[in-house]
Amino acid sequence: MKIAMTRAERAQLAMMLEVCAYPKPGNVDRCHDYDDTRLEHFLASALLVRPAFNHAEEGGHGLGALIREATSLTSTHGGGNTHFGAYILLIPLIAGGGIDGATAAVKETTVDDALDFYAAFSMTQVRMHRTDELDVNDPATLHVIRDRGMTLSDIMAHSAPGDMVAREWTNGFALSRRAADLLHEAGCGRHAIVEAFVRLLASETDTFIIKKHGTEVAERVREQAAEVLAGTRNLESFDSDCIAAGINPGSIADMIIAGIYVALGEGWEWDC
Amino acid sequence: MKIAMTRAERAQLAMMLEVCAYPKPGNVDRCHDYDDTRLEHFLASALLVRPAFNHAEEGGHGLGALIREATSLTSTHGGGNTHFGAYILLIPLIAGGGIDGATAAVKETTVDDALDFYAAFSMTQVRMHRTDELDVNDPATLHVIRDRGMTLSDIMAHSAPGDMVAREWTNGFALSRRAADLLHEAGCGRHAIVEAFVRLLASETDTFIIKKHGTEVAERVREQAAEVLAGTRNLESFDSDCIAAGINPGSIADMIIAGIYVALGEGWEWDC
Repeated sequence: MKIAMTRAERAQLAMMLEVCAYPKPGNVDRCHDYDDTRLEHFLASALLVRPAFNHAEEGGHGLGALIREATSLTSTHGGGNTHFGAYILLIPLIAGGGIDGATAAVKETTVDDALDFYAAFSMTQVRMHRTDELDVNDPATLHVIRDRGMTLSDIMAHSAPGDMVAREWTNGFALSRRAADLLHEAGCGRHAIVEAFVRLLASETDTFIIKKHGTEVAERVREQAAEVLAGTRNLESFDSDCIAAGINPGSIADMIIAGIYVALGEGWEWDC
Repeated sequence: MKIAMTRAERAQLAMMLEVCAYPKPGNVDRCHDYDDTRLEHFLASALLVRPAFNHAEEGGHGLGALIREATSLTSTHGGGNTHFGAYILLIPLIAGGGIDGATAAVKETTVDDALDFYAAFSMTQVRMHRTDELDVNDPATLHVIRDRGMTLSDIMAHSAPGDMVAREWTNGFALSRRAADLLHEAGCGRHAIVEAFVRLLASETDTFIIKKHGTEVAERVREQAAEVLAGTRNLESFDSDCIAAGINPGSIADMIIAGIYVALGEGWEWDC
């Protein structure tokens, strides 16, 4: 049955559906937790983020302030940052009413958006490259942003080479679009989410894994996902191996959330 | 960490935490679905119900209209009625700001509340006794309500002997209170929810099971829960047996949701 959802609700539903989908290599899912981040943390974030999504839908709020609000609302539990990357995608998608609007909206961001974003960033444990001159842990960063007049869009362009989520702001949300297309191709329901996840993981090296474990590990994970697609590797044991090694493709998960959000708006059915 | 939640958010969190808790004999949980009602349906309801809970928190809306709104908002997916009983408890608890306020609020209900409630009821597949003169499937029921001037509180008193959820409206939310107490006794976190669930199931015969399978089956489930507490029955196999037989203690689940809501407001911690 079709649901007349608000954009905010659709985004919440995307967060809920992504975390429940199982088996999802390496990430928290219906059957797997990490010690410090559990299914309930992800679902609590999906519930508690709503005011920020409502504000994004209303319009009139800066994207940086909205990402800051979403991060703040969902940093109240002990599960740490669950969805920072997802907010970077969902907030412009909600505010812009879709990929075209989001692509336009990110171009309008300001220096204030960049400063708000860094305030949000400092609430999370997201890693940047240790050599990054715009390190969130360095108070001098804010001066650099102000001195150079960098907008949030500039920050994302700066991060794009090493961060596939930031890259979405620079390329018209290309992988969010691709994630939505993979969902449409895979059919309706929860199994389509798993299929889209593995297909995206098999074709793109997850930059979150690169930051945490290095390029070699991330490339191996991509190859292993391709082996699952080829039928030469078992998905459940791939999942177990990733979890045992603490390898979680967090940026692919963010992309899938964005893809579910976009696909739901195009009639993709989660409930079949 | 303490969360400054609204009452509406606390109620949504209660719905989310209850359905995720595992293992929960016979009910949908993190690891079990029924064919037609799955984890995602319960979680979608927890997301989509929010406007009704917000209205309950704002005040100025009738309890019957609020239950009708909650049911309507969450009847849009294919999972059927997931939380009708929970709304009967949560709506007055939110509107009244706790058990005392809820006990007072239900006494103020009107004939219009009763009519709204029956409109909500007709959206669900909840069973009444076949011999019930206030059968929701019988259009004459609405005339009976109007002719006799029955309020929603009267309806609940009428249903109380055979329905433990309706009974809460007549006895100061006694089992909701007890569920909250059991949570406090069991300590923090998800395991406390399972413990409170089994303890309540071992001490009260679930009227939802009675309606579906008869008193004998319901009484046997109660005894089996007591055996789990005594250590003479395995919880996981009890769970599997219930699921295989389609025996789900839905009213105990409603009570646990109400108990989580109350306990969270008293400082019980879900996240530890």
